[in-house]
Formats: sequence, C-alpha cells, structure tokens
Amino acid sequence: MPLVRISVLRGKPAGLRRQIGDAVHRAMVQTISVPALDRFQVLNEYEPGDLVYDPDYLGIARTDGLVIVQITLSEGRSVEQKRALYQAIAANLAALGLRREDVWINLVEVRKENWSFGNGEASYAPARMDASPRGAHVQGRTAQG
Amino acid sequence: MPLVRISVLRGKPAGLRRQIGDAVHRAMVQTISVPALDRFQVLNEYEPGDLVYDPDYLGIARTDGLVIVQITLSEGRSVEQKRALYQAIAANLAALGLRREDVWINLVEVRKENWSFGNGEASYAPARMDASPRGAHVQGRTAQG
Amino acid sequence: MPLVRISVLRGKPAGLRRQIGDAVHRAMVQTISVPALDRFQVLNEYEPGDLVYDPDYLGIARTDGLVIVQITLSEGRSVEQKRALYQAIAANLAALGLRREDVWINLVEVRKENWSFGNGEASYAPARMDASPRGAHVQGRTAQG
Repeated sequence: MPLVRISVLRGKPAGLRRQIGDAVHRAMVQTISVPALDRFQVLNEYEPGDLVYDPDYLGIARTDGLVIVQITLSEGRSVEQKRALYQAIAANLAALGLRREDVWINLVEVRKENWSFGNGEASYAPARMDASPRGAHVQGRTAQG
Repeated sequence: MPLVRISVLRGKPAGLRRQIGDAVHRAMVQTISVPALDRFQVLNEYEPGDLVYDPDYLGIARTDGLVIVQITLSEGRSVEQKRALYQAIAANLAALGLRREDVWINLVEVRKENWSFGNGEASYAPARMDASPRGAHVQGRTAQG
Repeated sequence: MPLVRISVLRGKPAGLRRQIGDAVHRAMVQTISVPALDRFQVLNEYEPGDLVYDPDYLGIARTDGLVIVQITLSEGRSVEQKRALYQAIAANLAALGLRREDVWINLVEVRKENWSFGNGEASYAPARMDASPRGAHVQGRTAQG
C-alpha cells in the first residue's frame, strides 16, 4: 500500500534518488510491517527555489541536501511504530551518506478500503468478505496496509 | 471537490494523459456523486526510474503502463461506493486501451470544510450557515464534496 | 509542520511562484498559529493541459492564473480558523495581483505524531513524553502542528 512521494533538489548524483527510495522502503518493511513487494513510489526533483525549507526550525540545521518524504499509508500504526519508522528512515539514509538533519518525513493515514492495486478491486476490502462472513475477516488480511 | 493527482511514465501518446483524466473524472461522476463540473486534476509525467512500482504485488502483473491515481475527496463514501469507483475507473481506462492491472488508485479523505474553490470561501461550510440555523444545513449542500 | 504543495501553470513571471509561497505561509502564521519558521513547501509548474480545472464550478470564474494550494497540516483547527485561513490566503495572493477567484485550497489533516522534521525524531510526540508523565504533555507542545 503505501504511496511514497520523495522530493529533493536537483543535482544529486545519478542513482541516488533511487537509493533513497530503496532506503525508505526498507525502513517501512523493517518497522511497520509493510510487505517487501508492496512498493510504490514517485521521486521528484525540484529546481532551486521550488523546494522551500527553513534551515533551522526546531533547532535542526537543514541544508540543500533535504529529503522530503511524504508517505500515504493505512491507519493503525501506533505512535511507537511511527517513531521506529522515523528512526529507521533516518538511519538508512545516513548509511547512504545523507545528513540525518536533512531527513523530513510526514505520514498521511487513510482507511484500509482506500486502496486499489489493480483490476479495479478494493484490495484490502474485497466484496466477497461481505458475502461470506465466516473467516472472511482473516482471509486476505495478512498484508497490513 | 476532489483533487486528483495522476502519475504516469513519460512516453505515452500525446493527449492520452488528458483522456486518462477524462476517464477518471467520468468514473467519479458515475459512482460517487461528484458534480460534473467539479473537476480539478494535476497530471504528472515521470522519467524511468522515478516512478517505482512492484510488478507483481498481490499477484497483479503491472507494466510501465502503470497509472497511479491519488484522489483527495470529502469523507462520507461507503465501502460499496469506493468499490464501485475503483471498478468504474478501471473500466473507463480499459476502454482507452490501458491494462486493468495497471490501474492503481488511492483515496485520501478530508472533512467537508477543508475546501476553498475560490474567493477565500469555505465552499462547503460557508459562514452564513452558522448565522441562520434554520434550513441552512440543506442549502448549499447539494454537491457532495 | 505544514507541508504545502503549490501548483500553477507554466509561464508566471520569475519569482512569482516564490512570492506565492511567501503569501501562503504568511496567511498560515496569521490565522492558524503556524510558527514563522515552520515553512516547508514544494512549488510545481505544469504545462497547459496538465493542470485541469473547471472554469465555472460553483459559479466562480477561474482562469489560467489558477493557483492550487494543498496543505497537509496537523488536525485540530476549528472551522472558523479554516475560514480565516482561506480568506487570508486569498487576500495575500490578491495583494500580489492574482485574482481571488483563482485561489483554490485544500487541507489534509493528520495526527500530531505524523511529523519528523529531522534526525529521525517524532518532533511533536517525542519518546520522553511517555517516560515522564508529569508535565510532559505541556512541554514541547508550543508549536501547534
């Protein structure tokens, strides 16, 4: 499920955007039970002046290396899981040589029935679940949105 | 109301992005009571590598023809309406020659007062509604967000 | 906190996009208690045809000068505050010479713990708040998301 929008300033070395996407996805798999194959991301580059950030808000020194990560995901994660996610994303990006201060994250939560991964199906709220109540609420729910 | 963000890989025939937008809008009018004139969309093209997708998650075979549709809309639709929306979007895009497996949809729901369509007004929660309680909750509510 | 996505058609005079961002930020500081330094924005230009709008929905006459402002922010603002925000954004953009009819706004609300402004921290829900219950819910909460 999650849809991840990553925004950076133009000028990063080739391939780094994709490595950033890899690192963010790994963090989600590690900390909030996102299936390994459940990866959907759009990576955006901005010209100077079109990605606006404060270089000091909350006393954190940000630079043009800023990485803005906005993740739309299913509701239901605890605050503790979200904290673990933030730490894992920052750690994974630091391992690529990015500054931890430059890792900016926002989560947007939606209901489980708000996803269709193809074929026009409500992937996490299939219609057959209504028709066969027995056991239906378990079936097809292994992926945690 | 809805704000629709559509993301595809670069290289689709000219005009197809706009036809995709038409098809998504028609599906919203058909299934979830969006007014025909209530159309606001941004269409985004991505370079290879900047739109990342799993080609097999949930057993659905996706290709570079993937269309990611993220719709921000007012809350209040039933699960059944959402299912109908997904099916209508997939059907309308299939009618354009796209693969149904390549239709990827996410909904983000917001409150009715979260929209301003111009002039600085809260379009679905106008201030006069507070001032004149009698009948005010009906007036101006024909559009369903 | 807020993450602001601004979308306009290509062709505005140089610098105007940034002035639009300034004006939107000022309105948030003025009306909904966003800290002055809490500014994070991405500014997007679209080719004709890729920013689709209805020129008359709700009887508001829109032009290619349309400015689509989508603000992700913490939940908790009243309807009255949102109305004030819309009016301030429209007024501030009108002061730049834009048409008030062309100011289009959508809010997406999220929980306070859904933000990390750097260093992998949950900026508005730090872990120490759980460890020291006395007074902890006040500390670090001056910024209103």
